[in-house]
Amino acid sequence: MFDKNAVAKKPPMGWNSYDYYDTTVTEKDVRVNAEYMAAHLKPYGYEYIVIDIQWSDPNAGKNRPKEQYINFSHLCLDEYSRQIPAENRFPSSRNGAGFKPLSDYIHSLGLKFGIHIMRGIPRYAAHTHMKLKGTDVTADQIANPFSISKWNGDMYGVLHDRPGAQEYYNSLFELYAQWGVDFVKVDDICNTNMYEKNPYSAEKEIEMIHRAIAACGRPMVLSLSPGPAVIEKAWHLEKYANMWRITDDFWDDWRLLKAMFERCEVWQKHVSEGCFPDCDMLPVGRLGKGFMNERSTKFTWDEQKTMMTLWCMFRSPLMIGADLPQLDKATLELLTNRDVLYLATDCHGARQVSQDSEHAVWTCRDNNRNNYIALFNLSDTEAEIEASLEDIGVSEIHFLEDLWEHQIVDPQQKPSKTGKISAIVPPHGVALYRTTYGDGRLCQNQ
Amino acid sequence: MFDKNAVAKKPPMGWNSYDYYDTTVTEKDVRVNAEYMAAHLKPYGYEYIVIDIQWSDPNAGKNRPKEQYINFSHLCLDEYSRQIPAENRFPSSRNGAGFKPLSDYIHSLGLKFGIHIMRGIPRYAAHTHMKLKGTDVTADQIANPFSISKWNGDMYGVLHDRPGAQEYYNSLFELYAQWGVDFVKVDDICNTNMYEKNPYSAEKEIEMIHRAIAACGRPMVLSLSPGPAVIEKAWHLEKYANMWRITDDFWDDWRLLKAMFERCEVWQKHVSEGCFPDCDMLPVGRLGKGFMNERSTKFTWDEQKTMMTLWCMFRSPLMIGADLPQLDKATLELLTNRDVLYLATDCHGARQVSQDSEHAVWTCRDNNRNNYIALFNLSDTEAEIEASLEDIGVSEIHFLEDLWEHQIVDPQQKPSKTGKISAIVPPHGVALYRTTYGDGRLCQNQ
Amino acid sequence: MFDKNAVAKKPPMGWNSYDYYDTTVTEKDVRVNAEYMAAHLKPYGYEYIVIDIQWSDPNAGKNRPKEQYINFSHLCLDEYSRQIPAENRFPSSRNGAGFKPLSDYIHSLGLKFGIHIMRGIPRYAAHTHMKLKGTDVTADQIANPFSISKWNGDMYGVLHDRPGAQEYYNSLFELYAQWGVDFVKVDDICNTNMYEKNPYSAEKEIEMIHRAIAACGRPMVLSLSPGPAVIEKAWHLEKYANMWRITDDFWDDWRLLKAMFERCEVWQKHVSEGCFPDCDMLPVGRLGKGFMNERSTKFTWDEQKTMMTLWCMFRSPLMIGADLPQLDKATLELLTNRDVLYLATDCHGARQVSQDSEHAVWTCRDNNRNNYIALFNLSDTEAEIEASLEDIGVSEIHFLEDLWEHQIVDPQQKPSKTGKISAIVPPHGVALYRTTYGDGRLCQNQ
Amino acid sequence: MFDKNAVAKKPPMGWNSYDYYDTTVTEKDVRVNAEYMAAHLKPYGYEYIVIDIQWSDPNAGKNRPKEQYINFSHLCLDEYSRQIPAENRFPSSRNGAGFKPLSDYIHSLGLKFGIHIMRGIPRYAAHTHMKLKGTDVTADQIANPFSISKWNGDMYGVLHDRPGAQEYYNSLFELYAQWGVDFVKVDDICNTNMYEKNPYSAEKEIEMIHRAIAACGRPMVLSLSPGPAVIEKAWHLEKYANMWRITDDFWDDWRLLKAMFERCEVWQKHVSEGCFPDCDMLPVGRLGKGFMNERSTKFTWDEQKTMMTLWCMFRSPLMIGADLPQLDKATLELLTNRDVLYLATDCHGARQVSQDSEHAVWTCRDNNRNNYIALFNLSDTEAEIEASLEDIGVSEIHFLEDLWEHQIVDPQQKPSKTGKISAIVPPHGVALYRTTYGDGRLCQNQ
Repeated sequence: MFDKNAVAKKPPMGWNSYDYYDTTVTEKDVRVNAEYMAAHLKPYGYEYIVIDIQWSDPNAGKNRPKEQYINFSHLCLDEYSRQIPAENRFPSSRNGAGFKPLSDYIHSLGLKFGIHIMRGIPRYAAHTHMKLKGTDVTADQIANPFSISKWNGDMYGVLHDRPGAQEYYNSLFELYAQWGVDFVKVDDICNTNMYEKNPYSAEKEIEMIHRAIAACGRPMVLSLSPGPAVIEKAWHLEKYANMWRITDDFWDDWRLLKAMFERCEVWQKHVSEGCFPDCDMLPVGRLGKGFMNERSTKFTWDEQKTMMTLWCMFRSPLMIGADLPQLDKATLELLTNRDVLYLATDCHGARQVSQDSEHAVWTCRDNNRNNYIALFNLSDTEAEIEASLEDIGVSEIHFLEDLWEHQIVDPQQKPSKTGKISAIVPPHGVALYRTTYGDGRLCQNQ
Repeated sequence: MFDKNAVAKKPPMGWNSYDYYDTTVTEKDVRVNAEYMAAHLKPYGYEYIVIDIQWSDPNAGKNRPKEQYINFSHLCLDEYSRQIPAENRFPSSRNGAGFKPLSDYIHSLGLKFGIHIMRGIPRYAAHTHMKLKGTDVTADQIANPFSISKWNGDMYGVLHDRPGAQEYYNSLFELYAQWGVDFVKVDDICNTNMYEKNPYSAEKEIEMIHRAIAACGRPMVLSLSPGPAVIEKAWHLEKYANMWRITDDFWDDWRLLKAMFERCEVWQKHVSEGCFPDCDMLPVGRLGKGFMNERSTKFTWDEQKTMMTLWCMFRSPLMIGADLPQLDKATLELLTNRDVLYLATDCHGARQVSQDSEHAVWTCRDNNRNNYIALFNLSDTEAEIEASLEDIGVSEIHFLEDLWEHQIVDPQQKPSKTGKISAIVPPHGVALYRTTYGDGRLCQNQ
Repeated sequence: MFDKNAVAKKPPMGWNSYDYYDTTVTEKDVRVNAEYMAAHLKPYGYEYIVIDIQWSDPNAGKNRPKEQYINFSHLCLDEYSRQIPAENRFPSSRNGAGFKPLSDYIHSLGLKFGIHIMRGIPRYAAHTHMKLKGTDVTADQIANPFSISKWNGDMYGVLHDRPGAQEYYNSLFELYAQWGVDFVKVDDICNTNMYEKNPYSAEKEIEMIHRAIAACGRPMVLSLSPGPAVIEKAWHLEKYANMWRITDDFWDDWRLLKAMFERCEVWQKHVSEGCFPDCDMLPVGRLGKGFMNERSTKFTWDEQKTMMTLWCMFRSPLMIGADLPQLDKATLELLTNRDVLYLATDCHGARQVSQDSEHAVWTCRDNNRNNYIALFNLSDTEAEIEASLEDIGVSEIHFLEDLWEHQIVDPQQKPSKTGKISAIVPPHGVALYRTTYGDGRLCQNQ
Repeated sequence: MFDKNAVAKKPPMGWNSYDYYDTTVTEKDVRVNAEYMAAHLKPYGYEYIVIDIQWSDPNAGKNRPKEQYINFSHLCLDEYSRQIPAENRFPSSRNGAGFKPLSDYIHSLGLKFGIHIMRGIPRYAAHTHMKLKGTDVTADQIANPFSISKWNGDMYGVLHDRPGAQEYYNSLFELYAQWGVDFVKVDDICNTNMYEKNPYSAEKEIEMIHRAIAACGRPMVLSLSPGPAVIEKAWHLEKYANMWRITDDFWDDWRLLKAMFERCEVWQKHVSEGCFPDCDMLPVGRLGKGFMNERSTKFTWDEQKTMMTLWCMFRSPLMIGADLPQLDKATLELLTNRDVLYLATDCHGARQVSQDSEHAVWTCRDNNRNNYIALFNLSDTEAEIEASLEDIGVSEIHFLEDLWEHQIVDPQQKPSKTGKISAIVPPHGVALYRTTYGDGRLCQNQ
């Protein structure tokens, strides 16, 4: 019995090439990032190395800064309308090897390998009536000329009720299984924003991809982009996918981070084993080279802690956007705080306690009777953020540990007396606490 | 520590005056319905007797059939801008007794007493600058002249940030507690459909009412109307209310019943102790007298079984719309099938397995390792409806009982061989099964 | 000085192949319709013979009834990305002759020749990087992969700010001028309904086409489809086009005809020399063969008179949809009532006097002090329709002629006494009157 | 025969109390503004003195700056539910005199008198069941509790199909005729923005007011607010009103002025005798005292010339917003440039020649073969703005006069040579020219 949840019992953690390399990532870039991960991040649970968009376009990035994607570029295709890596960028893919050699190398480091695809079939294949594997029909017979992406001109959607449609998707995942792919990020599928009145228009393509993964015999995480996902379709996403983006692309901009609280509010009840609403990559460290906008993250340290706290408590997947080899020590520590990562990996029941434009409070718990409370300051000035024990759902608190500062909070502030937990929090910052019933222990996961 | 969930650990069950009496219900009508419930329905869990809209208007119903509500009617008010029962309709309320005598009688039958209110403050009170209890401000100072209902002209919304606003709501619930009210259905508050771009505009009034209930000292179920509730605000509803309507008014029309499957699909993850998305009253038996459209329900028997099955599996509150004394035997049996009611009272984890315009499959489970499967035929012709064991999440099935037919299903159809459960289902009908792992028992709750 | 209005001082009148032939019209069909027009309709002002959509597709209609257009069909193109007639359907176009021989024949009959095109450039040309005439750039460099039609998959919109874009459109109209084209119906351009929030998204393509017509040296009527045109852009349409559709496709369905009154209401002030809001073809006579739905018009006679009256008074273009050789005598008379056609050709100032869901009254005037009044019954039962002289804007009326019945109205009904004009009108029908100040003459134009 | 156009053959010109006094204007303020107008502006055509909103509220402005209007304030009403002037603000209205004494004074200065009203009937009258004149029904029977303004809480809309409804409006205008009112600005009626999907919801109230004016026997200009008016309903506005606002409130903010070009673009075909789309008051000079924001206009001189040019060429009504006694010499000259005012009073056929985000060109003509061309620079930097003679519709130009600079343009720039008219125009500024065929005359109207 195929269980799509088995491959992602906890939120997937890893690295994605997009935030730094945009469409231009090469085999060499992937290897050095994987090597860094194996050395520095794997012990903390990070394991996926994901190659993002446009790996089949030999000219990707050449029209920068005018255009992100090259309209009508001739993508590298095999005889069955399937995209294959551009050899000039991924030399080991020569002679039909595809991503197999690179994937093997990633696996040899103890990591897992992921790729990005756009839903659908190349437009060029449809217009030139190319063949499909495992069926007599041709690409034009399954392509939908009215199903396009709003932002990338490569593909047409696939008509699910046409003979050959499922066979086409099966042929894709058969190939990806041969390559050793562990993770597929499918794009223009979660919110097909070209179609404003029907953003979930690719529903049937999600089902075809789900079946193709089941059929290919290799477990793969199914990640859907872009957001915002449609909350009314939560049941369908939970049934067929492992993670789905709940926002449009996320970047190092406070307004986007602040808006994420509203998205997490909406999706808080929909997090479970194999089902992870996705807040998108963590835009920390060095970013933007492929976009011709290379920089260090514009987030302040407080904002970065706010982000890590929210992502972990909400149990979003944790995909690092930075160029890993350039990570500084502080950012590495931010990403490897065991106490904070523990929220993502071992806690549950996260819920928003209160929220307005100035603040948010979240809480979750672990299996050891500990509660976790995050007090977020969403305003632009330092403020006292508080939550009542009643709202948090605990009757008394013996010890309170600050998980970012790694210290036990001053007993003078014992909340049992006031019925509240509160903290002075810097602008855009967070105070994150663990409460314990028994004897306090300092930051057990350090 | 006030826990708003304690008052409704299971879905509230009872009777509401609206479907039969509209705005015209009288004290005598309420008493005879209560007496019937005590005699025939209480043993199955039904307990609330709820008086619906317009009990303070002495002329309610007089403009029928032209108008449902009488614009600018002079409602019965006390000196503090609070509505009191119209004495010509509720004689025991004389001399300032309010609903206390009637409530006492309901309680003497072992039942619970509920009332309907519109959110806000009477418009007349605002225009004539009436007093409020417990504060120096007057009605005009807390009323919002731009916050109105789309369908009833009695009230203005209350400005939550004005001095006296909370005091006003507190004064209402103080009165209701004196009356012995156990259940309050607040209207024009869940979806304020006058404001199309902001249907959850009464958010702060929900919070004020929640606080007023906490302050009044008497537990009361808080029921919010009308729907459709806004799924993005699920967390807020779950925090402050006990039940909230997920559709507009529901009546005996197949299109509305079919549409309910889409609403339940959306809300399936949001059912828990004290938190019950509400499919609205059960329009069975005799209906519509107050609407000048008296009739027996237009639902077929198959549709009625479909409705009961969905409401119970989804754990909607179960409020009967019929005039109870006129219930026929078959309808009474429909409402008192212990095996079906058991889904509402003791099962959990209900979820939609599949759905399209022709069919729906739902499943849930109890604490004894039993699974329940409902196969709904949403089409207009008899059809075989099926579900795979994989989708239901069970690996094998020993016995299969039909909970409407009260019989063990023919072993020839044992699903373990086919990997499926299926049934031939009449149009708009349902087959409802319990699966057991051990020795089969026939319909244990009968 | 190029004056785009000079080519259409009066509303264009003629025939269009779509309503009967859909995408399947052939050279022979065009010839026999032209011959009929020359013999029977030309004396009344009809002169345009227009070949509608898909004349470059050799397989057009082959997927009927499943699909109207064949996705990814290989259209006939010349070396410069320009569509040319499919030789199997238009034999005289062989050897690069294009539509020239057929156009010559039409002209030899004293008629004018028109064609339909979709805005943009063939998608195939863009994906295969075809050449453009008069420029070094290729099709992919001017095509917009995100600008598509909602209902036909052949073309991409053209990016107006790219080098080569105007040259491409110039090359099209240079070819059409060589062919002898007098009328161009450009489709997917007036309301680009793929883009719901920006239905006038092809604004710049209208300007390019306007310039290409000016540059080609041959006068051509520019007709834009489909509607509804965007009233806020009336000034732009009036500046650049000769006629533009004010509704979506119009067919022989009373609901569509009734709805046209609301469209004419909106556009009544925007009719002038060279500027004609377009109510679409007249679906009379035999219709629908190419749609596999051959029939006589479903309009009643009263509805047909209503349609002709509204189109003529509003001065819509008059393009016949019927297969002309099959016209019966009554329909021919309907189309050639000189008194009614006179409204379209020689009257002005048409305006709606009143309208509701049951009736409409329109009036216009000629240059001889005559007023025309149309009393439309939009209801489903016979009714008296009336208009006050004040509303019509005349102070007294000496004679009143009925232009459909060709008779002077009974003096008993003289409106000067009552201050009104009224008539008993059949359901969906019309009474059309001319008022004169001097001595009455019976239907002067007969 | 009542002709509603006769009272406004040319765009109404005058003064309105709102921009300076908001809700607080008093009898004395009105008198001194009228006296100034009689002395300085009347010779140029300005004649209306209009008292804007809230003249019946004795407490108007008392809640500033918190609220513009006082919710639930007890307005001054006569026994028939009609508002009468607040005596504390308009002392001459004592003893039931109403506005008659003030109106008489305005008339004695050779000027005309106007008032503002909100559509509908006072809410207080409906809730207290007040009488109506000329009918037995009471206010509650004609008031619509669901028809409210989005921004002022005084009134309910009137149900047009109820007995007494027309009688109520007749009683209002009977009173206004007794007072000597010449101009009525009716508010919350042109765009009833409370009802987003039906902004023209007060259509029937416009018709009732039109009939009430016809019935009252005194000519009155009917001015409708606020905008934006609904272009689809242009025919209805043209049939029943004299002027209607095409934007929301206009203030001294460049963004609003720039946006007016788009509104004028839409409405350009809808200007005729008695029918004037209204760009709102001219916020020049001293503004905002009643708003607690007293200031001189924030418009630059170039912006003010742009505004006057557009208003005059488009033939908008010209209602001055300034406090007249405080007008400085330059502003007075701006408002009294005879050559520019001549566009509003004696020209016609105004149309937009071209427009984009950087510029606009308009043209119109008079009856003496002169053309007028306005070259607007909508950008933030000085720019050359040009228009082709072809676009303007003239073949050659002999003389060109600058109507703001009062000079003949340098012959070196003669447009006949270049086929263009062009000018270097400052940011947000305008160049306004008159072309003549015969011998040039310098600024004939000076």
